[in-house]
Amino acid sequence: MKINRALALTLAAASVGASAQSSVTLFGVVDANMRYVKNSGLPSNISMNNSGLSSGRLGFRGVEDLGGGLKAGFWLESDVNADTGTMNANGKLFARRSTVSLMGNFGEVRLGRDLTPASAHTYKYDPFGVIGVAGANVTSRIVSVAPTSATYYRVDNMVQYFTPNFGGLQAELAFAPDENAANNTGRHAAARIAYENGPVSVSVSYGTTNVNAASDKFKQLGLGVAYNFGVARLLAFYQRDDLPFGTYGGVVAGAEDKLLIGVTVPVGAHQIRASYVRTDSRKGSSAFNGSDANKYAIGYVHNLSVRTALYGTATRVSNKGGANFSLSGGAPGLAAGGSSTGMEVGIKHSF
Amino acid sequence: MKINRALALTLAAASVGASAQSSVTLFGVVDANMRYVKNSGLPSNISMNNSGLSSGRLGFRGVEDLGGGLKAGFWLESDVNADTGTMNANGKLFARRSTVSLMGNFGEVRLGRDLTPASAHTYKYDPFGVIGVAGANVTSRIVSVAPTSATYYRVDNMVQYFTPNFGGLQAELAFAPDENAANNTGRHAAARIAYENGPVSVSVSYGTTNVNAASDKFKQLGLGVAYNFGVARLLAFYQRDDLPFGTYGGVVAGAEDKLLIGVTVPVGAHQIRASYVRTDSRKGSSAFNGSDANKYAIGYVHNLSVRTALYGTATRVSNKGGANFSLSGGAPGLAAGGSSTGMEVGIKHSF
Amino acid sequence: MKINRALALTLAAASVGASAQSSVTLFGVVDANMRYVKNSGLPSNISMNNSGLSSGRLGFRGVEDLGGGLKAGFWLESDVNADTGTMNANGKLFARRSTVSLMGNFGEVRLGRDLTPASAHTYKYDPFGVIGVAGANVTSRIVSVAPTSATYYRVDNMVQYFTPNFGGLQAELAFAPDENAANNTGRHAAARIAYENGPVSVSVSYGTTNVNAASDKFKQLGLGVAYNFGVARLLAFYQRDDLPFGTYGGVVAGAEDKLLIGVTVPVGAHQIRASYVRTDSRKGSSAFNGSDANKYAIGYVHNLSVRTALYGTATRVSNKGGANFSLSGGAPGLAAGGSSTGMEVGIKHSF
Repeated sequence: MKINRALALTLAAASVGASAQSSVTLFGVVDANMRYVKNSGLPSNISMNNSGLSSGRLGFRGVEDLGGGLKAGFWLESDVNADTGTMNANGKLFARRSTVSLMGNFGEVRLGRDLTPASAHTYKYDPFGVIGVAGANVTSRIVSVAPTSATYYRVDNMVQYFTPNFGGLQAELAFAPDENAANNTGRHAAARIAYENGPVSVSVSYGTTNVNAASDKFKQLGLGVAYNFGVARLLAFYQRDDLPFGTYGGVVAGAEDKLLIGVTVPVGAHQIRASYVRTDSRKGSSAFNGSDANKYAIGYVHNLSVRTALYGTATRVSNKGGANFSLSGGAPGLAAGGSSTGMEVGIKHSF
Repeated sequence: MKINRALALTLAAASVGASAQSSVTLFGVVDANMRYVKNSGLPSNISMNNSGLSSGRLGFRGVEDLGGGLKAGFWLESDVNADTGTMNANGKLFARRSTVSLMGNFGEVRLGRDLTPASAHTYKYDPFGVIGVAGANVTSRIVSVAPTSATYYRVDNMVQYFTPNFGGLQAELAFAPDENAANNTGRHAAARIAYENGPVSVSVSYGTTNVNAASDKFKQLGLGVAYNFGVARLLAFYQRDDLPFGTYGGVVAGAEDKLLIGVTVPVGAHQIRASYVRTDSRKGSSAFNGSDANKYAIGYVHNLSVRTALYGTATRVSNKGGANFSLSGGAPGLAAGGSSTGMEVGIKHSF
Repeated sequence: MKINRALALTLAAASVGASAQSSVTLFGVVDANMRYVKNSGLPSNISMNNSGLSSGRLGFRGVEDLGGGLKAGFWLESDVNADTGTMNANGKLFARRSTVSLMGNFGEVRLGRDLTPASAHTYKYDPFGVIGVAGANVTSRIVSVAPTSATYYRVDNMVQYFTPNFGGLQAELAFAPDENAANNTGRHAAARIAYENGPVSVSVSYGTTNVNAASDKFKQLGLGVAYNFGVARLLAFYQRDDLPFGTYGGVVAGAEDKLLIGVTVPVGAHQIRASYVRTDSRKGSSAFNGSDANKYAIGYVHNLSVRTALYGTATRVSNKGGANFSLSGGAPGLAAGGSSTGMEVGIKHSF
């Protein structure tokens, strides 16, 4: 059980930058926390969870300078669930990203499994990053309904094109073939335009995924805005996820709008973060239509270094109508219209 | 099929020590052997096995110096079964360990999947380390009966606290929540106190795991002693595993005591090792109660370097009453009271 | 979702050579492409595939100099399917290779999962390397029928012996025990002798695998020849795979001969490659016997560097009799005697 001798890799400040020479980088995040959840009318429960501040991961990435402004790169990134030692539920070794790229003055062409721009706002403009007890994904039916082989955040078989950055303006196009000769179920296309300059960040995205042989589409429209006032950074996103009303994998789902308003406040080297999320089920049956929710969250991040932080987060979900969104780790069986309250305290370490 | 060019990592003597600076370490063990097993009354069989001297593994670990005596660390470690290329049967990528730690003058707080102190003696005081043809686990029903989501050696979702080392004296506390709101099935708690000083090593541990909704407990008591006389190091452990008598995953199991007496003898740079293990089934039905076993093992380790060794091990299991413990890799169907004899010759290489 | 800081590994020219000092090497290939397939009488289809030029992989290998001409080494290599982020379908983490070796003047003894010499010619003498849209494996029933736990290319539990290289002449012996006490199903033995000197490459192999309790054998005979004329390198292999006629995992299969004639033509730093493969089903039922196929392929490899290449490949399969071999990624249901045409364009990046 002992290691006689070990290979130590020297730590360097280098990261893969715009003008980087050829390099290969090993990187990762290990994040674990203790979570308390109380669902109304049910006993409370304590559990260990992972990825409360940053998604657990282990990755290998590299860039090769081909000369003449041309570069090639790869990125292989696995999930790391520190609480149980698993990678993820879908059995993919490199579920977070597995891509190969060609980059140059023309921008970047990237092939493989990756995040789709269609859902980008839901984590880019959420102070809690769609992870942990307070992520905006908690009060969303759509996220847990993979409307084909694609998941909500990541898509297999994508060809992506990223334009160069024009003074803060950048666009991205993504296409994934359906890999289905009988019909086009699973075909995914998405685009996003973003402007980032100093304190300003504005972004808009649109995406579609064919959900059946009749070419009915899951349509996603996203808007994100952030402004850094110095004393605080305000963030907001609006995401309209238009899934044809129906039953997907046993879950009744349909069109759903999410609105988030958030803020991050620097406190010395540390940070306070807070958010309000409103989930609005639209169309479909009247029961579905009235099943909405509000979520409130506040958290504190205590940075021990650039790589390591302690954090604490508290959140409350208030359901309306037939909705019974609840925090994971709580007792099952929350009644419609009930509330779910949770807290977690944890440590994040990146390398 | 060819590798055009490769990334070579420079090998350094550095390991993660007490006063180490920030570092990330890649480490591992690849160990494979050929095993011969003869079960009484059945044909013999030859197979390839792994981890005869040291458990096959691939890991990434690191320590970051946060200043002021504070450090953060992570440890991600996978199984490596060299004979077949698999990691393990439970599908966990980092089944051996996935933890994040905060360390300081106060000791260490560690979160995640790890070895539990409740079973520590069974490998820390076994010259064969509960692996290979001669490990003490061979003649144990308890080890193969995971009495909840926890396994015998490793437990998910643990919060551990390690005290500082007071002149050789160190204590460890471990707790894993049940992650079960309906009742406490799966809750695990354990503690261990050890004293290591020069030739002396003494240790005691206790642990409990809730095995059902009635909060019946799997109780583990362990004692370990070792003394290094120079010409030889004597080891012994006594492990009382008190599982409520019943059927677990189709296997009848109950209280079981194990007693090991072992010795390691240095021969120049090499080593002879031997052990006697007595398994005593207690309580439960009279048939179970009388199903005991003795195991005798001897082995030789020929070190080619600090990292690489050849090894040979021979062992014999003598069953009594209804017991039919047999070495893995042998013909199935050993009769009650039969014997199982095995040998393996292999190579271990660590990096 | 962001990486605060990263560990950069310095890139060195070093590879594991004959006189290498102790080292550990991280290496890999990420290869993805877009593929078009048209099966006769069916709609065409577009998909993303991986490993069109070089098999996607991530590996760790090392060599330790033990002194006196003795060396130890390990090799752990995983599949990387960049299009979907998976490793492979069989769930093995190190499916490509997991071995530990002892090397010296006597040659090399290697233990663990590895490529078997019995099938070596099918990729060593194929300009397309049995991968991608044009590999010789496309028109083979045998390859997809694993006649026991062994697969066609790689075998678990192997003990291999490689002789030293005598002026270009080298031999290899491989044996894998059946790990089956009841009978010898799964036992595998194989040998190969090769001569490589300047422009000449000649090789012959033979292997057997027990496929049932009656010790019926899957017999493999392979011959490979290549000659480099400078302006072009000619390659050819003949592989006789003699599987007892029967149904294996629902697929009717039996004896099958494959003949490949190929050529690679350097064009500056780049390469044209082409092949003709004839598949001849022999013995068994008359329907099976007459189910043959011809395959024609041509491709171009545009090397951007030693590590990175763009490639394009086109291929056509012409079936005869009851055969309906088709390229993966195409519409299912190709009629007997139909044709399958495909093209792919991709990028390969190694590190």
